[in-house]
Amino acid sequence: MLLWNGKLVNEEDVRVSYHDRGYYFGDGIYEVFRIYQGHLFEKEAHLDRLYNSLAEIKIRIPWSREELSDQLDQLRDTFGEQDGMLYLQFTRGEAKRAHAFPASSTAVMLGYCEPLARPVDAIENGIATITCEDVRWLRCNIKSLNLLPNTLAKQEAAEAGATEAILIRTDNTVTEGSSSNLLIVKNGTIYTHPDGPLILSGITKKVIERIASELQIPYVQRSFTREELMAADEAMITSTTMEAAPVITIDGQPVGTGTPGPVTRRLQEAYLQQVHALLAGASPAS
Amino acid sequence: MLLWNGKLVNEEDVRVSYHDRGYYFGDGIYEVFRIYQGHLFEKEAHLDRLYNSLAEIKIRIPWSREELSDQLDQLRDTFGEQDGMLYLQFTRGEAKRAHAFPASSTAVMLGYCEPLARPVDAIENGIATITCEDVRWLRCNIKSLNLLPNTLAKQEAAEAGATEAILIRTDNTVTEGSSSNLLIVKNGTIYTHPDGPLILSGITKKVIERIASELQIPYVQRSFTREELMAADEAMITSTTMEAAPVITIDGQPVGTGTPGPVTRRLQEAYLQQVHALLAGASPAS
Repeated sequence: MLLWNGKLVNEEDVRVSYHDRGYYFGDGIYEVFRIYQGHLFEKEAHLDRLYNSLAEIKIRIPWSREELSDQLDQLRDTFGEQDGMLYLQFTRGEAKRAHAFPASSTAVMLGYCEPLARPVDAIENGIATITCEDVRWLRCNIKSLNLLPNTLAKQEAAEAGATEAILIRTDNTVTEGSSSNLLIVKNGTIYTHPDGPLILSGITKKVIERIASELQIPYVQRSFTREELMAADEAMITSTTMEAAPVITIDGQPVGTGTPGPVTRRLQEAYLQQVHALLAGASPAS
Repeated sequence: MLLWNGKLVNEEDVRVSYHDRGYYFGDGIYEVFRIYQGHLFEKEAHLDRLYNSLAEIKIRIPWSREELSDQLDQLRDTFGEQDGMLYLQFTRGEAKRAHAFPASSTAVMLGYCEPLARPVDAIENGIATITCEDVRWLRCNIKSLNLLPNTLAKQEAAEAGATEAILIRTDNTVTEGSSSNLLIVKNGTIYTHPDGPLILSGITKKVIERIASELQIPYVQRSFTREELMAADEAMITSTTMEAAPVITIDGQPVGTGTPGPVTRRLQEAYLQQVHALLAGASPAS
């Protein structure tokens, strides 16, 4: 089942118009929620960010947060007790093609769940990465459907046999991955680019920040350079689907010892405990 | 009739998949051709740019340029002898959502014509504009479907009662309009931002450059600042649908005398002659 404009429908009932502004302009936003054994992880944080993205580009949706939240639960219920992800997007709706917002249009909602196993190999053994110029727009805090630069960077990584592309602005500021946040560890302290228009405010990164605080691992939000990145003791990417995955090589160079480091391991362990806590503490409908 | 994957079809036969990468990522490119009395203006230049955009983001299409060109003529033939525009876009095609390019996908083509009168009022009397921060990505030479920043800027203009938003980078470089190129005139010389990754290589702008050369009006491609813009004697935007429209105010301040200037007028006149030449010289099928 898919969620289409507030209703659970079958695939054949999803009708995307070529006049959908999502199709013409990428005029829309999205979220990806993690499902662990049928439970939505950090659901409220994802909803917070979703509403922030909607507000940033002034898309109004005709459902209250409570109604939307219920719809997501219903969608998840059709999916069962598996591990997976829930994809949800909103576009500004259908209108004859013109850049400015249409006088009246109704947001188009699309949501569905897909099975997705935890990427255990990446989490355990780490990933290879490349660096790419960060050519994205200057509102990366909005989780918009304008993802062409992200896809081009990810493709460049794939062609190099790597899992992720680390993006670096022309002024040598390291920002994040093409579909992940980036954290490095140096002398026991975690460094990551501050939230703001140059990166997406990652939900998983927020969880890691909370965990670091609990574990009393120093956590500093400041931008860093390519040279600092390459000299890090450890590096990791975080995302809803990748959790916290150790970065073991960058452009073919090992990070630290070239194996997942001790700080990353402690964070991963605590992260998994949070997932287990969700599952243990969760009522069937949470 | 619409052009859909190489065939002329009716509206109800256009079926956009929600898995179309154009819908998920804006992973596609487009062109807008001008139709004057049923004739495609600067068709080859638009096709050149289309192929350049395709190459830049590595979308392959299953038709030769000759086949595509024929299809556009067939589409135009269904439209008749009106003034209008032909919209054409290609996306990378349908695939399960993942950033990197799918192992195999077929580009999705959409094309159609719409009636569109010459914007005589704007051309004759000029337009009001505002300035906006240019927050777009750093590959603006690619005519991609990632147009969210353009739509946001155009909307800001509309809400201010203006026709176009002039984009200015944070380093004070004036680039172009949200859906147009920008040229200014100072002491009889035309200045415009050079082609490159910060602007779209406008077809109409190229026509104006050719005309300026013919009329021996000095034409200089160099970037200029907001202060130079505000101190210009004349300013104009150029685009396929707006032709060369005088900018008479910027953020409420008059440009020069606040009326269309003499250089703009000479260019407009010569532009119209080129259109008339197309119509006069054209064989029925050109």
